[in-house]
Amino acid sequence: MDIPSAKIAVVGSGAVGCYYGGLLARSGADVHFLMRSDLKAVRENGLTIRTMGKTLSVTGIQAAASTDEIGPCDLVIIALKATANAMLLEAIPPLLKPDTALLTLQNGLGNEEFLAAHWGEDRVMGALCFVCLNRIAPGVIEHFDHGSISIGELRRPAGDRLRAVADAFRRAGVDANPVENLVTERWRKLLWNIPFNGLSIAANGATVADVLADDGLRKLARDLMTEVLEAAARLGHEIPAAFADFQIERSFSMGAYQPSSMIDWSHRRPVEVEAIWGEPWRQGVAAGAAMPRLEMLYRLLIHAVRPV
Amino acid sequence: MDIPSAKIAVVGSGAVGCYYGGLLARSGADVHFLMRSDLKAVRENGLTIRTMGKTLSVTGIQAAASTDEIGPCDLVIIALKATANAMLLEAIPPLLKPDTALLTLQNGLGNEEFLAAHWGEDRVMGALCFVCLNRIAPGVIEHFDHGSISIGELRRPAGDRLRAVADAFRRAGVDANPVENLVTERWRKLLWNIPFNGLSIAANGATVADVLADDGLRKLARDLMTEVLEAAARLGHEIPAAFADFQIERSFSMGAYQPSSMIDWSHRRPVEVEAIWGEPWRQGVAAGAAMPRLEMLYRLLIHAVRPV
Repeated sequence: MDIPSAKIAVVGSGAVGCYYGGLLARSGADVHFLMRSDLKAVRENGLTIRTMGKTLSVTGIQAAASTDEIGPCDLVIIALKATANAMLLEAIPPLLKPDTALLTLQNGLGNEEFLAAHWGEDRVMGALCFVCLNRIAPGVIEHFDHGSISIGELRRPAGDRLRAVADAFRRAGVDANPVENLVTERWRKLLWNIPFNGLSIAANGATVADVLADDGLRKLARDLMTEVLEAAARLGHEIPAAFADFQIERSFSMGAYQPSSMIDWSHRRPVEVEAIWGEPWRQGVAAGAAMPRLEMLYRLLIHAVRPV
Repeated sequence: MDIPSAKIAVVGSGAVGCYYGGLLARSGADVHFLMRSDLKAVRENGLTIRTMGKTLSVTGIQAAASTDEIGPCDLVIIALKATANAMLLEAIPPLLKPDTALLTLQNGLGNEEFLAAHWGEDRVMGALCFVCLNRIAPGVIEHFDHGSISIGELRRPAGDRLRAVADAFRRAGVDANPVENLVTERWRKLLWNIPFNGLSIAANGATVADVLADDGLRKLARDLMTEVLEAAARLGHEIPAAFADFQIERSFSMGAYQPSSMIDWSHRRPVEVEAIWGEPWRQGVAAGAAMPRLEMLYRLLIHAVRPV
């Protein structure tokens, strides 16, 4: 794929899609955004990314109300909430050519598999986004911190396609790191997200600092990590226990950070319960891991985030 | 003990103490209540028990502001929240003669042991109260349902003393059932209280109907029961698994019942976290039981009920 001339679609134009898609467009890539609520504002005013005291305005944004309007692309970037994956069944087909690549920036487990099941494993790439973003108005994204991505092929080593996409992100100013085993990286990220995002809701609004300050919750977070490590290991992803200890230790510097799931929950937005807790629990149990704490957390979260 | 002539103290004059003590006083027993906030109202107006559409007025109540005022008794009924047990260290000694019996009506595990550790195991009896009560004003108790008690000696079979106390309750209109193994009965009651009282808080205000209607929470409640059964069995209290299934089944008829801990929590009153969850978990783990779900529930509850 020659990205400078490639046609790229972004499906899911929330904070993540607008941020990364906006940076790609700003770098000269041919990016088309599927938009709903923000369509009019973005067509009129473009995208605005507020970052580190600066304001980046990206004008001339190509935004469409349907993927039929966009038509076949070389690369489709999927950045919608995993809870909305069903909409992809209609949205993806108009974007496909025989060699169209699909890159999911979604959280947790199961998204690459969903794409592979419907449109073929060969198309599928995934990336983990290490970024703190918030969409504060239609087409306006606030960028608080970080921004790097780890990008890999699904169950294949990195090849020319992956390097081309990573290069495109780098030209856009994104620190993009190709990884050999994408799913291992997902488990490494879940090692933190499962306890800290989960307990932030299950303990009814506990920030990272709250979890760490409570001896019982901190121990519970570490015990959840032990379950995740065991499941990952049984699934072929060896992560050293010392990495879990390090993840606890480094979290002390985060202060009263609100995990993204806590923010979604407190605003009554959908929380990716299946991708972050349900699928890791199912995969771990299927591989023979004992995960009673994760199961309990999952069940409490299903209840906590249900519409009322 | 000859109860008709016995001097009885009630320590902890909330809903439970006022209800059972009030019925004993009404039946002619010589009952002395230790009171704080309700003292003036009860001295002036006596106790009022609203029950099943009737109002029972119990006048001539003997209420004191300290146990020094009450002096030595034959029987001390302890009905305060287990979270306030430390106050007993000062309150109990003025009530003691060499043969004074101590009867705790408190919930959960550890209360008999607390009394035994400080004032001798021979004195200690305990009772489980199956009753729905609410204190709606100083000296005014609303009785919604049930009222029976199961009463036993601590680690001794029932004897003359226990029968005399049970008879006194029966004369007062209370269905009092002597039990041979008090601690087994406590575990049988915990089998329900641990999941349903616990999840009512951990699932952020879930009634019994809410827990039963959510497949995940209902399974979690049953899994918690399995842990409790295993711990009880290791501690010598064999409870058949069918009893757990029965407890789930019978709960469907309770509808949107709010467990007492949920009511306490929603009113920001102390919740007996150690007696209902902490002590069973500690005893179970010490006996070699695996109790990851109870441990997690306990840690979430400590956090949920902390003063903020």
